[in-house]
Amino acid sequence: MTILEAAHKMSTGEASSVELTTESLAVIKRRADLNAFLAMMDGRAEQRAREMDAERVAGKVRGPLHGVPVAVKDVFCTKGVKTTCGSPLFADNVPSIDAAVVEKLEQAGAVIVGKTHMHELAYGVTSNNPHYGAVRNCVDPTRIPGGSSGGSATAVGAGMVFMAMGSDTGGSIRLPAAYCGTVGIKPTTGRVSRYGVMPLDFTLDHMGPLTRSVRDAAVVLQAIAGYDPRDDSSSRVPVGEYDPGDNARLDGVRIGVPENFYFERVEEDVEFAVRETVRFAEQAGAQIVPVEVPDIAGLNATSRIVLCAEASALMLPYLHRRNEIGADTLALLDQGRLLPATDYVNAQRVRRSFQREYAEVWKQVDFLLTPTAPNVAPPIGQGTVTIAGVEEDVRLAATRFVRGFNMIGWPALALPCGRSRDGMPLSAQIVGRPWDEAGVFRVGRALEIALG
Amino acid sequence: MTILEAAHKMSTGEASSVELTTESLAVIKRRADLNAFLAMMDGRAEQRAREMDAERVAGKVRGPLHGVPVAVKDVFCTKGVKTTCGSPLFADNVPSIDAAVVEKLEQAGAVIVGKTHMHELAYGVTSNNPHYGAVRNCVDPTRIPGGSSGGSATAVGAGMVFMAMGSDTGGSIRLPAAYCGTVGIKPTTGRVSRYGVMPLDFTLDHMGPLTRSVRDAAVVLQAIAGYDPRDDSSSRVPVGEYDPGDNARLDGVRIGVPENFYFERVEEDVEFAVRETVRFAEQAGAQIVPVEVPDIAGLNATSRIVLCAEASALMLPYLHRRNEIGADTLALLDQGRLLPATDYVNAQRVRRSFQREYAEVWKQVDFLLTPTAPNVAPPIGQGTVTIAGVEEDVRLAATRFVRGFNMIGWPALALPCGRSRDGMPLSAQIVGRPWDEAGVFRVGRALEIALG
Repeated sequence: MTILEAAHKMSTGEASSVELTTESLAVIKRRADLNAFLAMMDGRAEQRAREMDAERVAGKVRGPLHGVPVAVKDVFCTKGVKTTCGSPLFADNVPSIDAAVVEKLEQAGAVIVGKTHMHELAYGVTSNNPHYGAVRNCVDPTRIPGGSSGGSATAVGAGMVFMAMGSDTGGSIRLPAAYCGTVGIKPTTGRVSRYGVMPLDFTLDHMGPLTRSVRDAAVVLQAIAGYDPRDDSSSRVPVGEYDPGDNARLDGVRIGVPENFYFERVEEDVEFAVRETVRFAEQAGAQIVPVEVPDIAGLNATSRIVLCAEASALMLPYLHRRNEIGADTLALLDQGRLLPATDYVNAQRVRRSFQREYAEVWKQVDFLLTPTAPNVAPPIGQGTVTIAGVEEDVRLAATRFVRGFNMIGWPALALPCGRSRDGMPLSAQIVGRPWDEAGVFRVGRALEIALG
Repeated sequence: MTILEAAHKMSTGEASSVELTTESLAVIKRRADLNAFLAMMDGRAEQRAREMDAERVAGKVRGPLHGVPVAVKDVFCTKGVKTTCGSPLFADNVPSIDAAVVEKLEQAGAVIVGKTHMHELAYGVTSNNPHYGAVRNCVDPTRIPGGSSGGSATAVGAGMVFMAMGSDTGGSIRLPAAYCGTVGIKPTTGRVSRYGVMPLDFTLDHMGPLTRSVRDAAVVLQAIAGYDPRDDSSSRVPVGEYDPGDNARLDGVRIGVPENFYFERVEEDVEFAVRETVRFAEQAGAQIVPVEVPDIAGLNATSRIVLCAEASALMLPYLHRRNEIGADTLALLDQGRLLPATDYVNAQRVRRSFQREYAEVWKQVDFLLTPTAPNVAPPIGQGTVTIAGVEEDVRLAATRFVRGFNMIGWPALALPCGRSRDGMPLSAQIVGRPWDEAGVFRVGRALEIALG
């Protein structure tokens, strides 16, 4: 069931917020094997569900999120509720504020049932957390859900909540969405406030929802987008009208399909499914334009310099507590300390060049369509993956197609596009111009209808 | 004579652009001892002066800069004219473009007669250039003119040109203005395009004019301010109306005088002159408010980390040409290479905190009034200065009051405020809210009238 379906059922009296919330908490309990949550907010949620039902009875409906049970990744500060960022370093962190996104979700009527599990410090893609256990993939619990928002993806995929918020620094929303078969959007830089979010990186972090449908993602973004003076990266660009409705046509839309990089070294099933999605787009009226894109491998390398330096700068005061940090995360944090400032400064310069260079693509097309990940979710505990005969580090392989759009800031949506031969979710990435989340949702919705 | 006086004379036929330009070139030749220029543009200037006179005869007057001889620091690219940044590394650099500021000055009718001398690579305050000789102070040629825009200041002070453009990364407009007795403004970050300027630093560089009067500075800023898509730090905030006219009153204006830091460790004459200026402001109707400001020493230290890292990142490809770089500049560039990325990232974070913290002062006051420099221009070749019994490095001492406003981005004007007992120029700094250049000019003009 989607948010919009739940909203409809509540509007006709077929369901109540209390019923949906009770059911949500029950599913979370039933699927404890997936290890999707770090903290539950049962009491607050049940109380809130009753309030939302009472409001509805009194004729007040705040919108489609009114009374809908949702979750937020454990990077979002929740007043009085432990917020750990998946790390023992913050095991006792009980914020005195709500994150801007939490405030806005509650203003929109959502019922937050708990804090989803994640990769330690949001610094990785496996969500195999050495302190709080591995998060498991809702489709195949022997596999990783992706990360860092692994708990959010598996919670939405397994029907625990209608939506879970994630954060995305190098693909951490889109990748778990892809691996767990959910929708996920990383909005344009500055679109959603980062106030009250435990940061991984100052210039790459983005906040966005994981949902079961494109329209649901649009409805949530509508609720959480907008300027926030408390976040100095927040933008005053007006918020769009995001809900794409049920329009299945894409007439006149130019969709670019990168012929370099994005289809090199991907699993066969991924290539097949994404090419099929392209065919659906064409059938829906879109004009398909093969394009060449700039050197994404270079952009990815640059992105890792920026991330390494910024994450280590942030964590510097904690790095002496070495036995409270997992091996993979500690290795990255140690690497970041070895980078010279000049490399970091030059990486930011190269980033601006890439932004300008890559933006040339918008002269030819309105959207890009690529795979989200080159592979399906690998088994838990595996450090490398072999794709098209080449063995690579899991993190570097998985983030290859998503990481660049954190650097250049554009909106990017992960859209489920079928299953692999072994039943694992596949995903296409739809990328739009800065601030064109509405367009990205429109294309996503049309393809979602076509894909069935 | 000021720009406005020259414009008046040309409008009444008492002077022509050709006459003013010829005179300008003659003074430059006569005062060759000051070593104010690195390259002359005689031919282009004379041709242009004739064109400007012809336009005037034909009834076209572009504005107050029409036909006025000016100069630009040798960081501004001039098409077909060598632009060296005061360094042998760029001895053969003949740009194929004009800097945005050069374009705009010429559109406004100005006649550019040459490129002013400067501190090597704009990285210092003495303008004692080991490759092209020391620039000398127009008031006392045994002393430094300040820097890095030393040639611009001494050229304006000695009457060679009506205006010279400078660049200011840590005080490089305001400090030479102070030492040579001219007006100089560092506008708000993003106000004047940096397109076509050889950079020292990506986040601290600002472009602005040095002139003989406050109104002249306003007239020039009017011509060069505005959005430029070719500079990604350029702002779309609308340009103000800058010319303050001849209003001598400051009724209702709240001027903050920092009681910490800015009057600690300054030469007696400086303190006396700036306190006198404060008294004049009060007599003109301003309300004087003693304020406490944040830890400027900390802000300055942070600024040096940012500058060191960014300048070294920029110059990395040249650092193997060690014998083409002067000792003081090379030492700074080498220091920058030793900084870890994490320190740089954290310096940028601290910078944002300072911006927020320091901005609290605008709740109490509309402007700040401080000394521009703690001392008068020291002798050429002196590495340290002793102020109030404490010996300090010349560069660190001289930039103490100016450097911070490059970090937080606010507009700051250097205003001559009398002479020391040994006849050297003294200067007060007027600082305003972001984008309030108009206000800064208004206060500057009223004080200029009061100071006589």
